[in-house]
Amino acid sequence: MSDHLLSQLAGEAARLAQLGFMACTAGNVSVLLEHQPLVAAMSPSGVDKGQLKPADFIRIGADAKPLPPDTRKPSDEALLHVRIYQATGCQAVCHGHLPHTTALSLAGGQELVSREVEMQKAFAGTTTHEGARHIPIVENSQDMEELARFVIAARQPAVPAVIVRGHGVYAWGNSIREAGRHLETVEWLARILWLCRVGGITQPQAHARQQS
Amino acid sequence: MSDHLLSQLAGEAARLAQLGFMACTAGNVSVLLEHQPLVAAMSPSGVDKGQLKPADFIRIGADAKPLPPDTRKPSDEALLHVRIYQATGCQAVCHGHLPHTTALSLAGGQELVSREVEMQKAFAGTTTHEGARHIPIVENSQDMEELARFVIAARQPAVPAVIVRGHGVYAWGNSIREAGRHLETVEWLARILWLCRVGGITQPQAHARQQS
Amino acid sequence: MSDHLLSQLAGEAARLAQLGFMACTAGNVSVLLEHQPLVAAMSPSGVDKGQLKPADFIRIGADAKPLPPDTRKPSDEALLHVRIYQATGCQAVCHGHLPHTTALSLAGGQELVSREVEMQKAFAGTTTHEGARHIPIVENSQDMEELARFVIAARQPAVPAVIVRGHGVYAWGNSIREAGRHLETVEWLARILWLCRVGGITQPQAHARQQS
Amino acid sequence: MSDHLLSQLAGEAARLAQLGFMACTAGNVSVLLEHQPLVAAMSPSGVDKGQLKPADFIRIGADAKPLPPDTRKPSDEALLHVRIYQATGCQAVCHGHLPHTTALSLAGGQELVSREVEMQKAFAGTTTHEGARHIPIVENSQDMEELARFVIAARQPAVPAVIVRGHGVYAWGNSIREAGRHLETVEWLARILWLCRVGGITQPQAHARQQS
Repeated sequence: MSDHLLSQLAGEAARLAQLGFMACTAGNVSVLLEHQPLVAAMSPSGVDKGQLKPADFIRIGADAKPLPPDTRKPSDEALLHVRIYQATGCQAVCHGHLPHTTALSLAGGQELVSREVEMQKAFAGTTTHEGARHIPIVENSQDMEELARFVIAARQPAVPAVIVRGHGVYAWGNSIREAGRHLETVEWLARILWLCRVGGITQPQAHARQQS
Repeated sequence: MSDHLLSQLAGEAARLAQLGFMACTAGNVSVLLEHQPLVAAMSPSGVDKGQLKPADFIRIGADAKPLPPDTRKPSDEALLHVRIYQATGCQAVCHGHLPHTTALSLAGGQELVSREVEMQKAFAGTTTHEGARHIPIVENSQDMEELARFVIAARQPAVPAVIVRGHGVYAWGNSIREAGRHLETVEWLARILWLCRVGGITQPQAHARQQS
Repeated sequence: MSDHLLSQLAGEAARLAQLGFMACTAGNVSVLLEHQPLVAAMSPSGVDKGQLKPADFIRIGADAKPLPPDTRKPSDEALLHVRIYQATGCQAVCHGHLPHTTALSLAGGQELVSREVEMQKAFAGTTTHEGARHIPIVENSQDMEELARFVIAARQPAVPAVIVRGHGVYAWGNSIREAGRHLETVEWLARILWLCRVGGITQPQAHARQQS
Repeated sequence: MSDHLLSQLAGEAARLAQLGFMACTAGNVSVLLEHQPLVAAMSPSGVDKGQLKPADFIRIGADAKPLPPDTRKPSDEALLHVRIYQATGCQAVCHGHLPHTTALSLAGGQELVSREVEMQKAFAGTTTHEGARHIPIVENSQDMEELARFVIAARQPAVPAVIVRGHGVYAWGNSIREAGRHLETVEWLARILWLCRVGGITQPQAHARQQS
C-alpha cells in the first residue's frame, strides 16, 4: 500500500509542479503512513518536485527526523507537516509557492476573502457558492515550531489551507489528491481575486438572486 | 459509433483541461447518444477531467439519472446538460471554470459584450468581426432546475454559450469539437476584454474602415 | 524536398499552437513551393493547427484556389498569403491570433512602437536594441483582396509583420522557422508593451548609456 | 564527465525554454569545462534552445572563440559568459529573456528590490526571507566587452544575477541546475513585484512579526 501511496504522491507533486507551484525547487509534499506512532513520507530537500520517484521520499517520525538508518535530508518544513498531521488528523499535506496568493498576501491583513465563487466548493465540505470563504494569512518565520504555531492557531474549520505571507500555502486533505486540490483551489480563488482587484471589480458582498 | 464518440469526448475534455478550464476537478462534458428518448454520455463527478477514459462516461436519461444497471454518480450538473439538449437541439455540451470570464462576471451586469474582434467568428454561424456579440450572464444557483431555467431563458441565438456568474460557462455545439471550441472562444474573448479593461482600452463601438 | 518542407510546416504550426496563437482552430500557415508560377502549400480551413500532418496541406496557385484535382478547402485567408508572397518575395507566412497584440490593437492608432528592447533583434536584419521598431496596424476586413491591399500598403521594411486590428498578426520570413519566429516576436514585444502599460511604465524614448 | 555535463546543460536549456525564457531562439547557456586555461561549452547561435543535443554545444576558449578545428558560431554573448566565469569563479551561466523582469527594468532605476519574500531563499546562500534582495540593473549594449564591464561592476555578493535593461537576465551558479534556478528565481520575484505593482500593493519595508 505504501508503494502505491508514494507513487501517487510523486504523481501529485509532478502535477503541482506542472501548474507552476513548485518553481525553483520550492514546495514540498507528504503523506501519512502510520498514525500512532506517526510516520510520514516526505519529499527531499532542494530537488525538482516535478521529477520525484517513490524511492526519493523519506520516512520521518514525530520529531520530523528521518527514520534510521535513513540519513537523507527531508524538506526543511518537515516539522510543520508533522504538526499539521497532529492538529488536523489529515492524511496528506501539500505546500507550494503560489504567485497570485503570494502577491495578495503582501497587501497586509489576516485573510483573503472569496465571495460567491463556485470554485469555493472545491474545498471539501463546502456545498454552495453562497457566502464567503476566509483563507487565513499568517506571518512567515524560519523557525518551524513558531510557523507551526501560527498555522495551527489560524486555521478555519471550513478552509483546509493557510497562507504564509510572502511565501505560499500549506494545504491538507483526507487523501493526496484532496490535499493537492485544496492547494490548487487557493491559487484559483486568489487569481480571481487578483483579476478582479486589477480590473476594479468588487466581489459581491451578498447573494443576489436573478428573477426566474 | 458510441465508442468513437466517447473517445473523442475524453480527448476534448483532456484538451480543455490542458487549457486550464477544468481546474480542481471542476468542469464537465457530455455528448448526445440518442435523441428520442434522450440518452447522453456524461463525465463522472469529482475526478480529474484530463485523465478520462471512454468507460468512465456514464449513460444518463432524460431525468439525468444513470441508466440501470449503472449506479455511478454523474456530475451534479447532469440535469442542466439534459435541459440544454432539450432546448437547443445540440449534440454536445462542455462546461468549464474560465478565469477571465469568471472575474468579469463578478462586475455585475447581464452580459459580456465583445465588439469588432475577429475571434467572434469562432462561434458557429458568425461570419464577420463587424458588430458585437452579447454573451449572457445568469446568476448562479445550486438548484439545477432553477439554473437550467436561467440558462435556457438567457440564451441568445447567435451565441452558443451562457456565463454563470462567479462560476463559469456552459457552451454547446453540433459536435463535441464545436462545443469545446465555443467554450474556448468565450474565454478568449473575455481575456481580450480583461486585457483591454486593465489597459484602459475601450473596444470600438462601431466599425471604422481604413482608407484603402 | 516538398515532403520535408511540409513536415517542417506542420511542426512549426504545432509549436505556434502550443504557444496559444492558434486558439479555437484559428490561425494558418503556408510555405512557398514554386515561385513562377506560384505554388504554395496552405493549411486547411477549420481544423486544429496543433495536429496537422504533411498530407493535410493543400497546394494552391496564384488564384489561392486548390490545384486540381484537389478540391479541399484551404484557409479563407489563402489569398492574403498569396499577395504577401507576391509583394515581399518571402518563403513562408504564419498567421496567429495573439492576445496581447490584439488587445493593444483595439486602442486605436496605426502602429505599435517598441523601443530599446533587445528582442527587437529577433526581426531578421535588426542588429541592435537601440531605437524603435514600428509594427503597422491595419483595419480588419472580411474581403481578402481589400485586407491584402491594407497589409501590403502598410508594411515597413524593417518589420516582417503586420497587425490586423482586433484580429491578429501576419508575419513572413525567408524560411518557415523565420516566419514563425517573427510571429512570436510580435506577441513577445506586445506583451512587454502591455506589461509596461498596465504597470504605468513608459518605454524609453531615447538611448541612455550607463557610465562605465 | 564532459558528455554528462553537456547532456545536463541541454536538459536545463529545454527546461528554461519550457518556462518561456528562450522565446524567439533567444537565450543561451554555458558550462565551464576547464578552468586554467578556460574552456567552456556554449550553446550555438540562432537555434531553438528547447531542442539542443550535447553535440550542439561549442567549446570556446578565454577569447570566446571556438576551439579549432571547430568553426561553428557560438552565441554572440559568449564573451560575456567568459567574463562572468573569470570574475565570479562560477561553474555555469544561464541567460534568458524574462518578460516581467524586462518590463520592470524599463521603468528606470538601477535595481529591482524584493522584500520579505520566501523565494529570495532560492538564491544560494540566502537563508531567510527577512530583509531585501537588490537585483542590479545595467544598461544594454551590443558591445560585449562594454556589457561585460557593466555586469561585472554591478553584481552584488548576495545575488548571483544581473538584469540588463530591456533585455533579460544573466545568472550564474556552482552547477548547471543552480545557474538555471537563479534565472528562474529572478523572474519569479519580478513577477511578484509586477503583480503587486499592478494590484497597488507595496511590499513590506520591514519585518513585521505576528504575535504568537
